[in-house]
Amino acid sequence: MEQVTELSYALDTFYFLVCGALVMWMAAGFTMLEAGLVRAKNTAEILTKNVGLYAIACIMYMLVGYNLMYPGEPILDGFLGQFSVLGRGDNATAEVLASGGETYYSGLSDFFFQVVFVATAMSIVSGAVAERMKLWSFFSFAVVLTGFIYPMQGYWKWGGGFLDAMGFSDFAGSGVVHMCGAAAALAGVLVLGARKGKYGKDGSVKAIPGCNLPLATLGMLILWMGWFGFNGGSELKLSNVEEANAVALVFVNTNMAAAGGLVAALLLARAWFGKADLTMALNGALAGLVAITAEPLTPSPMAATLIGIVGGLLVVPAIVFMDRTFKIDDPVGAISVHGVVGIWGLLAVPLTNTEATFGAQIAGIATIFGWVFFTSLIVWLGIKALMGVRVSEEEEYEGVDLGECGLEAYPEFAKTGD
Amino acid sequence: MEQVTELSYALDTFYFLVCGALVMWMAAGFTMLEAGLVRAKNTAEILTKNVGLYAIACIMYMLVGYNLMYPGEPILDGFLGQFSVLGRGDNATAEVLASGGETYYSGLSDFFFQVVFVATAMSIVSGAVAERMKLWSFFSFAVVLTGFIYPMQGYWKWGGGFLDAMGFSDFAGSGVVHMCGAAAALAGVLVLGARKGKYGKDGSVKAIPGCNLPLATLGMLILWMGWFGFNGGSELKLSNVEEANAVALVFVNTNMAAAGGLVAALLLARAWFGKADLTMALNGALAGLVAITAEPLTPSPMAATLIGIVGGLLVVPAIVFMDRTFKIDDPVGAISVHGVVGIWGLLAVPLTNTEATFGAQIAGIATIFGWVFFTSLIVWLGIKALMGVRVSEEEEYEGVDLGECGLEAYPEFAKTGD
Amino acid sequence: MEQVTELSYALDTFYFLVCGALVMWMAAGFTMLEAGLVRAKNTAEILTKNVGLYAIACIMYMLVGYNLMYPGEPILDGFLGQFSVLGRGDNATAEVLASGGETYYSGLSDFFFQVVFVATAMSIVSGAVAERMKLWSFFSFAVVLTGFIYPMQGYWKWGGGFLDAMGFSDFAGSGVVHMCGAAAALAGVLVLGARKGKYGKDGSVKAIPGCNLPLATLGMLILWMGWFGFNGGSELKLSNVEEANAVALVFVNTNMAAAGGLVAALLLARAWFGKADLTMALNGALAGLVAITAEPLTPSPMAATLIGIVGGLLVVPAIVFMDRTFKIDDPVGAISVHGVVGIWGLLAVPLTNTEATFGAQIAGIATIFGWVFFTSLIVWLGIKALMGVRVSEEEEYEGVDLGECGLEAYPEFAKTGD
Repeated sequence: MEQVTELSYALDTFYFLVCGALVMWMAAGFTMLEAGLVRAKNTAEILTKNVGLYAIACIMYMLVGYNLMYPGEPILDGFLGQFSVLGRGDNATAEVLASGGETYYSGLSDFFFQVVFVATAMSIVSGAVAERMKLWSFFSFAVVLTGFIYPMQGYWKWGGGFLDAMGFSDFAGSGVVHMCGAAAALAGVLVLGARKGKYGKDGSVKAIPGCNLPLATLGMLILWMGWFGFNGGSELKLSNVEEANAVALVFVNTNMAAAGGLVAALLLARAWFGKADLTMALNGALAGLVAITAEPLTPSPMAATLIGIVGGLLVVPAIVFMDRTFKIDDPVGAISVHGVVGIWGLLAVPLTNTEATFGAQIAGIATIFGWVFFTSLIVWLGIKALMGVRVSEEEEYEGVDLGECGLEAYPEFAKTGD
Repeated sequence: MEQVTELSYALDTFYFLVCGALVMWMAAGFTMLEAGLVRAKNTAEILTKNVGLYAIACIMYMLVGYNLMYPGEPILDGFLGQFSVLGRGDNATAEVLASGGETYYSGLSDFFFQVVFVATAMSIVSGAVAERMKLWSFFSFAVVLTGFIYPMQGYWKWGGGFLDAMGFSDFAGSGVVHMCGAAAALAGVLVLGARKGKYGKDGSVKAIPGCNLPLATLGMLILWMGWFGFNGGSELKLSNVEEANAVALVFVNTNMAAAGGLVAALLLARAWFGKADLTMALNGALAGLVAITAEPLTPSPMAATLIGIVGGLLVVPAIVFMDRTFKIDDPVGAISVHGVVGIWGLLAVPLTNTEATFGAQIAGIATIFGWVFFTSLIVWLGIKALMGVRVSEEEEYEGVDLGECGLEAYPEFAKTGD
Repeated sequence: MEQVTELSYALDTFYFLVCGALVMWMAAGFTMLEAGLVRAKNTAEILTKNVGLYAIACIMYMLVGYNLMYPGEPILDGFLGQFSVLGRGDNATAEVLASGGETYYSGLSDFFFQVVFVATAMSIVSGAVAERMKLWSFFSFAVVLTGFIYPMQGYWKWGGGFLDAMGFSDFAGSGVVHMCGAAAALAGVLVLGARKGKYGKDGSVKAIPGCNLPLATLGMLILWMGWFGFNGGSELKLSNVEEANAVALVFVNTNMAAAGGLVAALLLARAWFGKADLTMALNGALAGLVAITAEPLTPSPMAATLIGIVGGLLVVPAIVFMDRTFKIDDPVGAISVHGVVGIWGLLAVPLTNTEATFGAQIAGIATIFGWVFFTSLIVWLGIKALMGVRVSEEEEYEGVDLGECGLEAYPEFAKTGD
């Protein structure tokens, strides 16, 4: 019997680790997506930002974030990366067996799963501020977001704080992760301003196409795959019939919502623009994924498809109006995909989950958005005062790659300065 | 004891989900492979095709395909994506425990695994018709293939139909998936015709090189990795010693066949053309993978390597003769890789599996090929009559990206129209 | 009870297979990393090298390598790929149940896991000799390294040989895999010489930038992900509380060391060169991964981060001095990343693992380095005498792609000969 308990513990731990590795893989997805959607002259810098922010997120979350977010978890001792007995102690087995099923997986596997989530939130920011932000200002913000801003609101929901107590429902983070990242990105874009030449004084809007769409497509497909870990792992348990069925349903619904979002955005773009706009298809799939993230467990696969379809239908006008009407310059559409559609996902929860209410969802949205947006705004303004946030006009014209990284991403293919 | 049964159910479900995620990842493999093997001016469109067909396949298979293929499975209620009790019901645990081991994994995990297979079959088509087909004609065909044509022949073999009853042997789909895709592709290419300038009136054949071989190589490596899920998951069970050993052997044989196919094609290309043709090496690896898919369980690793080697030796002349002799314009060699080598894989089954016969294999090949080819031909001709299948000559010259998608895949790197 | 033993066997086997698939995926990582760091005109050849060496490694290791390295394992019969009863026999279940827990996973899953390690070692070589080595000379060396040189030293440590007996500690192969590859690469570079134009007669050093940094970044991220399998699978067991905790710790430490290495190298490059050099950040992450590979189990996550930081701080000057001072032309920095940092990783083991000693570590380093370097040197010199190792000057100028592969990697983007 004890062997069965141990085996069950091992399976749930392995499930966490596999899902965590898939979420870590999403870092590659964001990196490729964003690198494909910027111009060649700004590619090396956005690559540097993405790999750098992932590393920073891991370190900050180990040092302070995890303990801020999960103060009751006896995994980390004293905010310094010293993991306690449950992770590796001599009597770990005895403790697990004595816990009566409460300790059913390795705390370290949970830390691994959580840490890759933090990086996801921060990845959303990098796309929105692309092509004109100072690299080290960006990294400074990453330190604060991943160490403090994200963990605080994460605690309110997943750490057992007041949002959880009031019935706010967010299965895998349409709000805690995606809208959080979008709110921080919006604050950054407002402080930073649009790229040079993006909006003319006569009100004209210039489209600035991405330089490498196969990379962007690869990034979307990586994110789609990684999302099976993101949502699938958020069930937090696999080891009995009910939980295994739940995880399987989450996988299916995640897949269906992405499919629905992609098809809907592609058809809408075809009808609206007359062309099958690939970038809209990519954003449609991501919108479907963001939309289902708040509740992938209670919808039927058909309902999940519809939730994704609405996400795909929302993201196309969101990107268009954000750009043309509000003149918010978000090169990859991150604020629309993760923010606007993240809100849709949260509001859709009560449609299939009878335990959720619109009131609690709206309260959660307002709380998370307000907290992240205003703290981020303060931090961005502070960084602006201390070290500046924007590269020089000349550097922006030449490309941030040369100015910030001292090298070019495609030295043989593209000329700088175009 | 009940806990052990539940744990076993959870492990088999997880095994299905992990393998399914790997097969979904093959969508990225086909996308990158095909994007790397076409010209820059047709890249955005083939990206759109690949992500679009994956989404369509998921939706159509949920709506009708799965129930057509597995009519006896109580997973989907009434063809509309309403998954039934086994997936999520309140008494699922009791049903599993009462089933005496018959219900040993989540039906939804099986649906997830199956749905990614459908997309694989359709992915094969997109490469063969690249660079000149209308996007929406392609998507229309995708609806029919994934909703009807594929599931029908899938039912005949894997759903318990007459091909299964007569002893046709196809472990993971050299026929049901790969040759099926190739037959549909062949019908499409015949209706569509060759690319402009491909074959001169004087009988000359122009080589049209792919624009991005690192992408194509990445695609092949993604497919190699995903194939561990494709073949490994097709054992359908993992949770005891015999099954675990079987799955391990399938992984090893899949890997060895790909290695054999790659080396064989590379050596043959070196001997025949005087050069180590990378595209032949990539197709050789894929040929090895297709060849072993019909039976990865009964060969020894050495025999699997030999089956892959024969696949690699077949694919090189198949591509050359298809192009030069038969003037069938298949830009990525999909018909040779998945069709010709798929047939080899099916014929190789009796060499190591004593339960298979050449007669049944030939009957299965003829049935699947005949069904898929002729129904596809009718559908392609119908689409041609209704909406046309081919872009205008001018559009083809300029590249289908601008005409169909309204954007360029590499706006800074390559000029259109070359 | 027997069912529990079988289930445990299945879980451990699945864990091996999943980790093995992740390590196989590292082949794609090396391929993309190296393809991104060479010039466009040499890209197709390095792609061919990487996919070819992986296939050769699998075949040679099956034919002779595995049995050389693990002579006591009853997996392979007689060096010819005929796997024995434990893999697939009729009484496999009875043997497992009778073994009292000793046979706790499929021998074939171990073979699969091991075979992808061999390829990793060989992948290290291809980057260092890039842009000027004859393709078939490289493949000839790959046959010898993967069939003989690697398995011999692998036996000394992991097969139960004298290095293991004397207390040399190398958890997942900082020495057996990474330093081994670096030593073979160093011997190759010394025999081969530098690229034309790299070092001027006046002592000047020309920087030759890589042509596709998004690919190189993708490669690094693939390697990061694959390393969870590389280190995580090297615990060799998962199925009880203690082992599951150990695997989780290995995942966490692997992730933290990479993060530490990346940040450290980026900061050092910023301080030293004044720019956030992306290629140094990539090499820093890989250095962190190589450094933790020798012992990812005994450090706390904080200590793992520090071990990675030191790796990142070492790799930047190692690359600079190797290039400027020693004029060893290693286009991708492989010798520094895998050799210099591999040694650091081995020397760091006694800092956290009380069972390891500096004496044994130094003896192991000297033994492995000496064995691999000198046997490789002899083989390289033999290949040089028999078939030459270096392409002609004209071929090098035009790019090895045309000469060796007869095609270009980016025919529409880049001109040859620059």
